[in-house]
Amino acid sequence: MRIAVDGMGGDNSPHAVVEGCVEALKEFDDIELYITGKEEDLQKEFDKYDYDKSRIKLINSTEVISPNEHPAMALRKKKDSTIVKALRLVKNEECHGVISAGSTGAFLAGCTLIVGRIKGIERPALAPVMPGKNGPFMVIDAGANVDCKAPYLLQFAKMGEIYFKTVMEINNPKVGLINIGEEEEKGNELTKEAYKLLKEENNINFIGNVEPREVSSGDVEVLVCDGFVGNAVLKMYEGVASTITSLIEQEIKNSPISMIGVPFLIPAYKKLKKKMDYKEYGGAPFLGVNGICVKAHGSSDAKAFKNAIRQTRIFYNNNLIEKIKLEIEKNHKI
Amino acid sequence: MRIAVDGMGGDNSPHAVVEGCVEALKEFDDIELYITGKEEDLQKEFDKYDYDKSRIKLINSTEVISPNEHPAMALRKKKDSTIVKALRLVKNEECHGVISAGSTGAFLAGCTLIVGRIKGIERPALAPVMPGKNGPFMVIDAGANVDCKAPYLLQFAKMGEIYFKTVMEINNPKVGLINIGEEEEKGNELTKEAYKLLKEENNINFIGNVEPREVSSGDVEVLVCDGFVGNAVLKMYEGVASTITSLIEQEIKNSPISMIGVPFLIPAYKKLKKKMDYKEYGGAPFLGVNGICVKAHGSSDAKAFKNAIRQTRIFYNNNLIEKIKLEIEKNHKI
Repeated sequence: MRIAVDGMGGDNSPHAVVEGCVEALKEFDDIELYITGKEEDLQKEFDKYDYDKSRIKLINSTEVISPNEHPAMALRKKKDSTIVKALRLVKNEECHGVISAGSTGAFLAGCTLIVGRIKGIERPALAPVMPGKNGPFMVIDAGANVDCKAPYLLQFAKMGEIYFKTVMEINNPKVGLINIGEEEEKGNELTKEAYKLLKEENNINFIGNVEPREVSSGDVEVLVCDGFVGNAVLKMYEGVASTITSLIEQEIKNSPISMIGVPFLIPAYKKLKKKMDYKEYGGAPFLGVNGICVKAHGSSDAKAFKNAIRQTRIFYNNNLIEKIKLEIEKNHKI
Repeated sequence: MRIAVDGMGGDNSPHAVVEGCVEALKEFDDIELYITGKEEDLQKEFDKYDYDKSRIKLINSTEVISPNEHPAMALRKKKDSTIVKALRLVKNEECHGVISAGSTGAFLAGCTLIVGRIKGIERPALAPVMPGKNGPFMVIDAGANVDCKAPYLLQFAKMGEIYFKTVMEINNPKVGLINIGEEEEKGNELTKEAYKLLKEENNINFIGNVEPREVSSGDVEVLVCDGFVGNAVLKMYEGVASTITSLIEQEIKNSPISMIGVPFLIPAYKKLKKKMDYKEYGGAPFLGVNGICVKAHGSSDAKAFKNAIRQTRIFYNNNLIEKIKLEIEKNHKI
């Protein structure tokens, strides 16, 4: 499999990207990586490592799109940017998938504009998988579509379900609608209408509304919502986790007796940290576009990049795109 | 001041309600309480305590509205319910304020239908104050209006600002818009339009968008959003806090070494628990109705009830309703 990698995306590029690529090459012997960026800068990083040169191709590109630029305008202006060049590799079928930790807006817009939507998909959706209390869960959409109509949410549910079956290997994953009450009649206009559509759909295991407080339990695998709510819920998850952790640390520092206990707790905290580490799950797939497109977190380190590559490889080996196409076609025939 | 109390609202009624009332009578010598419920049941509870009988009035009411009933229908059908009777006491000016821990839907609908809106207010909003890392913060609206227009959000901001100045005694409180990006152009149609209105308003200290991950920091006092987002954010706050805590507990239990540290940490955890305890803040005011209406949490204990009474008293002593009226009138004259 050939994977295109945006070599200049994210806070730690290019060094973390290159290190992640080198590690991935060691771990998976069936991949080749096409990395976009200034060739000499990338080469300098690669020279730090021993790696199989025949499986790396550097694609020179002189521009970088920053997260502060207007996505569509930047894509139009910067034809030689690392994001545009990486996406073109997929469009031209030189690569089977693409990963970027760069500007989310530009990457998602570029996926739709350059790689293109799967026929029949109304809106592609960003679908990160997060660590929950009892297992991983996916929020779909996590920010690509801030204003949604109910039929989009039904498609999100279908794509999320296929992803969980295919990539996470969970049979019959539970699908829930993020809503502010458990009962069918709760919520706003969008969720009330989406509820009806999801209930009528026989091919998914729809379990009803899931309140935001239950999201992080991980008891429901696929959590459907519009991109505004999904993004808010995920950012809240990050924010509250760090608030709680820092409040605990503060109180411990203020209490000399508590300080004595700290060294004993380190092993438990370390394990917890690993469990809650989104980097273990790689990047967020952008589902509904006609190619494997993975958005890595802007703060990705080498490990996160390696895991994004691992994930992209699983997508490919399991024919995720074909499965989504089949599902959507099936519905259009009915 | 005379306060109407729904004696049968909440999971712990009537015993927690009555205990909270008795404690409040001891702490504040300028209040009288009118409590609705089955007179004999309430009397039985009160008989457990020593209290000033001249400052308690039991208002017999035979019906209770459960949280599962349709709010508007229940209000129409159950004219003798504890919620309806308590609200009528405010409408008839027998009481200056009302508190209920019962059905949120029925209480809020009743506030609007029975007590009525302040003239000029488009939508009253539920506005709980929560404990944050660096101080308390308010989310307005927290669930009363799931589908909003931008001008409602501007009014929410004004009412929240007046509340913080008046009840929390914070001068020039910061007002933020809950949004999924910091920049002005981020968000959905509603937040983009609301941003413009808030920016144009000179009388509030609008500091721009606040991302959900920053909500719990408490750095911004008044957080404006539609009721769907507000409710989701608050429920997420509860959910993540409990997930993190239980994950820590789980990991500690699985690690014998960590167990040794636990006793040392108890004082720090206890302090943290008090800091994060919403019960300290009483109930959530329903702002924009023509009377002091406070929604107590369904799981309120005696302490939470006592604090809701304390809060209602501060509203009254600071002429909160009059101040909101003045602000709204001012805007209508312009």
